[in-house]
Amino acid sequence: MSFNTFGRVFRFTTWGESHGPALGAVVDGCPPGLALSEGDIQPFLDKRRPGQSRFTTQRQEPDQVRILSGVFEGRTTGTPIALHIDNVDQRSKDYSEVAKAYRPGHADYAYDAKYGFRDYRGGGRSSARETAARVAAGAVARLVIPEVTILAWVEAIGGDAIDPANFDAAEIGNNPFFCPDAEAAKRWEALVDGARKAGSSLGAVIACEASGVPAGWGAPLYAKLDSELAAACMSINAVKGVEIGDGFAAAALTGERNADAMRPGNDGRPVFLANHAGGIAGGISTGQPVRVRVAFKPTSSILTPVETVTREGEATEIMTKGRHDPCVGIRGVPVVEAMVALVLADQKLLHRAQTG
Amino acid sequence: MSFNTFGRVFRFTTWGESHGPALGAVVDGCPPGLALSEGDIQPFLDKRRPGQSRFTTQRQEPDQVRILSGVFEGRTTGTPIALHIDNVDQRSKDYSEVAKAYRPGHADYAYDAKYGFRDYRGGGRSSARETAARVAAGAVARLVIPEVTILAWVEAIGGDAIDPANFDAAEIGNNPFFCPDAEAAKRWEALVDGARKAGSSLGAVIACEASGVPAGWGAPLYAKLDSELAAACMSINAVKGVEIGDGFAAAALTGERNADAMRPGNDGRPVFLANHAGGIAGGISTGQPVRVRVAFKPTSSILTPVETVTREGEATEIMTKGRHDPCVGIRGVPVVEAMVALVLADQKLLHRAQTG
Amino acid sequence: MSFNTFGRVFRFTTWGESHGPALGAVVDGCPPGLALSEGDIQPFLDKRRPGQSRFTTQRQEPDQVRILSGVFEGRTTGTPIALHIDNVDQRSKDYSEVAKAYRPGHADYAYDAKYGFRDYRGGGRSSARETAARVAAGAVARLVIPEVTILAWVEAIGGDAIDPANFDAAEIGNNPFFCPDAEAAKRWEALVDGARKAGSSLGAVIACEASGVPAGWGAPLYAKLDSELAAACMSINAVKGVEIGDGFAAAALTGERNADAMRPGNDGRPVFLANHAGGIAGGISTGQPVRVRVAFKPTSSILTPVETVTREGEATEIMTKGRHDPCVGIRGVPVVEAMVALVLADQKLLHRAQTG
Amino acid sequence: MSFNTFGRVFRFTTWGESHGPALGAVVDGCPPGLALSEGDIQPFLDKRRPGQSRFTTQRQEPDQVRILSGVFEGRTTGTPIALHIDNVDQRSKDYSEVAKAYRPGHADYAYDAKYGFRDYRGGGRSSARETAARVAAGAVARLVIPEVTILAWVEAIGGDAIDPANFDAAEIGNNPFFCPDAEAAKRWEALVDGARKAGSSLGAVIACEASGVPAGWGAPLYAKLDSELAAACMSINAVKGVEIGDGFAAAALTGERNADAMRPGNDGRPVFLANHAGGIAGGISTGQPVRVRVAFKPTSSILTPVETVTREGEATEIMTKGRHDPCVGIRGVPVVEAMVALVLADQKLLHRAQTG
Repeated sequence: MSFNTFGRVFRFTTWGESHGPALGAVVDGCPPGLALSEGDIQPFLDKRRPGQSRFTTQRQEPDQVRILSGVFEGRTTGTPIALHIDNVDQRSKDYSEVAKAYRPGHADYAYDAKYGFRDYRGGGRSSARETAARVAAGAVARLVIPEVTILAWVEAIGGDAIDPANFDAAEIGNNPFFCPDAEAAKRWEALVDGARKAGSSLGAVIACEASGVPAGWGAPLYAKLDSELAAACMSINAVKGVEIGDGFAAAALTGERNADAMRPGNDGRPVFLANHAGGIAGGISTGQPVRVRVAFKPTSSILTPVETVTREGEATEIMTKGRHDPCVGIRGVPVVEAMVALVLADQKLLHRAQTG
Repeated sequence: MSFNTFGRVFRFTTWGESHGPALGAVVDGCPPGLALSEGDIQPFLDKRRPGQSRFTTQRQEPDQVRILSGVFEGRTTGTPIALHIDNVDQRSKDYSEVAKAYRPGHADYAYDAKYGFRDYRGGGRSSARETAARVAAGAVARLVIPEVTILAWVEAIGGDAIDPANFDAAEIGNNPFFCPDAEAAKRWEALVDGARKAGSSLGAVIACEASGVPAGWGAPLYAKLDSELAAACMSINAVKGVEIGDGFAAAALTGERNADAMRPGNDGRPVFLANHAGGIAGGISTGQPVRVRVAFKPTSSILTPVETVTREGEATEIMTKGRHDPCVGIRGVPVVEAMVALVLADQKLLHRAQTG
Repeated sequence: MSFNTFGRVFRFTTWGESHGPALGAVVDGCPPGLALSEGDIQPFLDKRRPGQSRFTTQRQEPDQVRILSGVFEGRTTGTPIALHIDNVDQRSKDYSEVAKAYRPGHADYAYDAKYGFRDYRGGGRSSARETAARVAAGAVARLVIPEVTILAWVEAIGGDAIDPANFDAAEIGNNPFFCPDAEAAKRWEALVDGARKAGSSLGAVIACEASGVPAGWGAPLYAKLDSELAAACMSINAVKGVEIGDGFAAAALTGERNADAMRPGNDGRPVFLANHAGGIAGGISTGQPVRVRVAFKPTSSILTPVETVTREGEATEIMTKGRHDPCVGIRGVPVVEAMVALVLADQKLLHRAQTG
Repeated sequence: MSFNTFGRVFRFTTWGESHGPALGAVVDGCPPGLALSEGDIQPFLDKRRPGQSRFTTQRQEPDQVRILSGVFEGRTTGTPIALHIDNVDQRSKDYSEVAKAYRPGHADYAYDAKYGFRDYRGGGRSSARETAARVAAGAVARLVIPEVTILAWVEAIGGDAIDPANFDAAEIGNNPFFCPDAEAAKRWEALVDGARKAGSSLGAVIACEASGVPAGWGAPLYAKLDSELAAACMSINAVKGVEIGDGFAAAALTGERNADAMRPGNDGRPVFLANHAGGIAGGISTGQPVRVRVAFKPTSSILTPVETVTREGEATEIMTKGRHDPCVGIRGVPVVEAMVALVLADQKLLHRAQTG
């Protein structure tokens, strides 16, 4: 089956393949009256855009978004917002090898097993290029939750993590790695360059924090805020793990160590003395920052030959030439931010539905 | 908002509170003609049942399930299957303290922030008691996927992990910890006893493997098999992290190390030389075992007093007396199995919808 | 497939067969803090209850509802509300004939064609007995929309219609036909008696009006208020047609005759000079009374023998003995009211989601 | 709220306004491997296209569809199919009157009441122009159900009905009214001309028959085949009533008259002696032709001045100049066919999900 719609009341549907003429998203359920123009979306696409440094794929896509519906006189009307992005640089190349043999780690074999058939040009629908549509939709979602600030960064590449003591949010935009630790950014330059030159690739861990989420968003039991965030992040290409708050580390703590004690705050709301829970209890936000961590596997496209089989089931070797991100996790930063924004916008509206 | 239905075509809805008269599930979309009786469900509930060892809560619940609809002459009819479990041991106790103050780590404050109001008896709807309904529904799901074998176990408690070299599936049923490593089980006895006696609690990591899943199940992009598994597991009480395959460890690998190379197999299907991906690529099953890991935080109910606030916003301390699991992750084993079964049944039917 | 959940944010799921031990509904998404007890639901079930006059089936069902979850200290908690009704009078009888041959007009053949199998006792899941669960859920929905008054009545039986000039809402409760025209009620007594004695049956038309619906509820384009009402009413057993406002009569009007002209009202809202549209324009409520008409076919169970086939495909005749409503439309009145209430509650919450 | 997605497993989402740059649909859940090109869609759009006779609006829209995704080498891939139609003839005109005052019968007032704001150019999102996207999606749906033949026609205009004795399917394409009765078509020419010249408008009744639907499609209880058809048809602009089979006429029949008796057929399936039920029993198809009737109100845009109010609540009069269909029901024929195709495709896939 194919399900390309995400969300419950604030919903978006994406479409498009890596090498088709265009890709896009339809955002439905957006409240009316919000100021919206292409200028609100483009900066986020620019952040995700390929070809901006030697550490990302060299495909050149301007990723200019056009709004085709749902906005009148500069404001959302409450009707579906169609976002359209043309594909420009679908470089004509020889895909006969990919058509014939399955690239390990890619969706090639699984798609063929499912559909008996696949668009093999650049991965077709399974290409990370689809995430441009998510980022565009996410920019609309941000307008629905102006009270929330969402910030993501790369926490580790290839197992080399930042030093939390060096964390500086202002650094994130200063290097091509969305790295908040200037020293780590320097190390990663060598690390990623090495992988790129070796035809190898690296995994990454991304952290995201949403501050300003009021207590009370979330929907027990099967649309819990953490459950929706997990689904949203795990749906991103190359993601293999999701943690809320302390995540797996919490499994090694005692109950005392993991308790987020509370004290009375000045505004009538409690002040929490810790945030092991990542801002979510019982699937509902607590008013603390919502914290998510996401694991990206290394890019599956590598220049090292790997054993594989052909469509006909014969043994062969494949190495994936072409333009690829040596560390696909890096460009995952704006995508994770977008997915978090989309979940929060949906949960805000859901909360409003039931509680007025 | 409240969303208590899970699934897309094979769906279930649960209801019930910790201290209400009963709890249950309605399973909808189950194929007709499957042999089903209470005897197919009860063993799974028995596996989850509290009070079976000193390492779990001492609440005594027989958890006898009754099928109230959807079965005729021993077979499913294709119409909704109502599963009903009476609550028996809702021990009358004094909840005035819990009613007044928020237990850190629990959903108390978040529910109040959302609904302005909560059923404070034993956690109400946010109690892990609700998972009995999931386990019952999961037993029905298993009948939909007879080709699949699902097995979960505890991999670590309080940071003390099993030795993979000692893994013996036959051991899992031989100890109260669902532990596949006899030596670790012995260590955990002391560990959990210690925590219990100290009024403390411990977290745990659960691993689950589903073998027999054919290649092709899954639904790009927003109902990917891994995305649905992540949502399903993250919706379980106390869960803070989900990994597919190597999960966060994959983020530290190179592309070569993470590649699941393929060779031709005897039956025309490829043989994979590794399973870093956990049996899922591009959101679709590859035919390898599906592997999931889930992190449970330590039980939030502890006997150590913790700072907190009252409903009126005043400072106080709370310690949670009463009957609790010292390590809530242990009884999570049958719940994780159930959620995996429910996702796979849904994805099997979805796959059939589109591809005939 | 089987879909037994209705609604988008205010949702309910029903379960149960005619001759199973019980039936029920789970209401999910109900706002918290509403006063709710069995006493709020029972009167609506009593209105629908069989066996109250010789004009309805003689099956004796007390239809006592129990609330099993979702209410604490007399108020809804925002979590799922389980409603449970025991079946009491599943008279033991010989179903061998119905098991063997298909009753024309009933779902027997269609269910077998779909599921290869059916619970033939009293129609199983396709029995109108299921509507008790809807009526119970509808009673909860009414609490969500206290601003709305919903009133339904029988407008015609067997083609014999009321005289609009005689309409008196107070009469509706004074006769066993929910008839607002005292003279028509007298005629229907003879009419329905005649059909009953002849072993025949009659169809009916039900009208329903919801007043107090504010302008603005509804959700273009595929969850329009009228579209949702049509789906809700057409899902009731024996219904074959649904009209909004003037319905089919509007198709014979000119644009001038059909125009609902407006004048300024005292409260800033327009006063409409007519209501051909039935209170809905563009799928959104206008603030006028919402008007729906529903056609019920005659009860398919009749004592006249009708040609049919057996499960094995052989020719036979069948006449449906047992206890049946001579005019199933009569007891449809509380069911239509319930479905209208359920749609309006859902749309009210949806509207609130998007517009705050 | 806004819901612009229809369907459960075969789903489509439409977007676009009357006077925006384009409109379109995203079809999701379509099975893979179907041959599909623009040439499969264009003929249906051409059938619906405005400006083809003096009996429809004179707006000139080529309605050329482009497929932007989901098709590779001429076949569907199982991923979302984006259909794009440019708006060409958004004639620049003065909308100041419509912006200021509410057109009776239109969605103007309701949209403003809901959203506080509306795109008033040509009705914006509430324009019947959106139905072009439905027709395009419906053409894809037809490919999913090659066993089914769908045929719709106009049965009555302004209360003047065809004579069933004159019914000739071959006539439907021979006149601008989709009329199967050559004599009625002649009468309607004068009738519609008269209305057009008088600045008036007329309603219409459309009938649709789907033959070849096998027994067993449909999903009790809240996604019944008839319930889904009712929702689908009632969501079309200007529709006020939907009937299945005999519809309201059935309400005047006795049980004997309404019974669709069966006899053994040659192929093991029963032969029905009548089809009062319109091919659906218990919400499931019986294998007989599925019959639907739909009532369209007269076009609300008329040249006769009608009393109304301004946005500021002041009394005024309005007459709707511009290009309009004198009988919007006529062009409803391909739209009804499309919606029926979309429902049947969805139900076919749903059926397959549960029953293999």
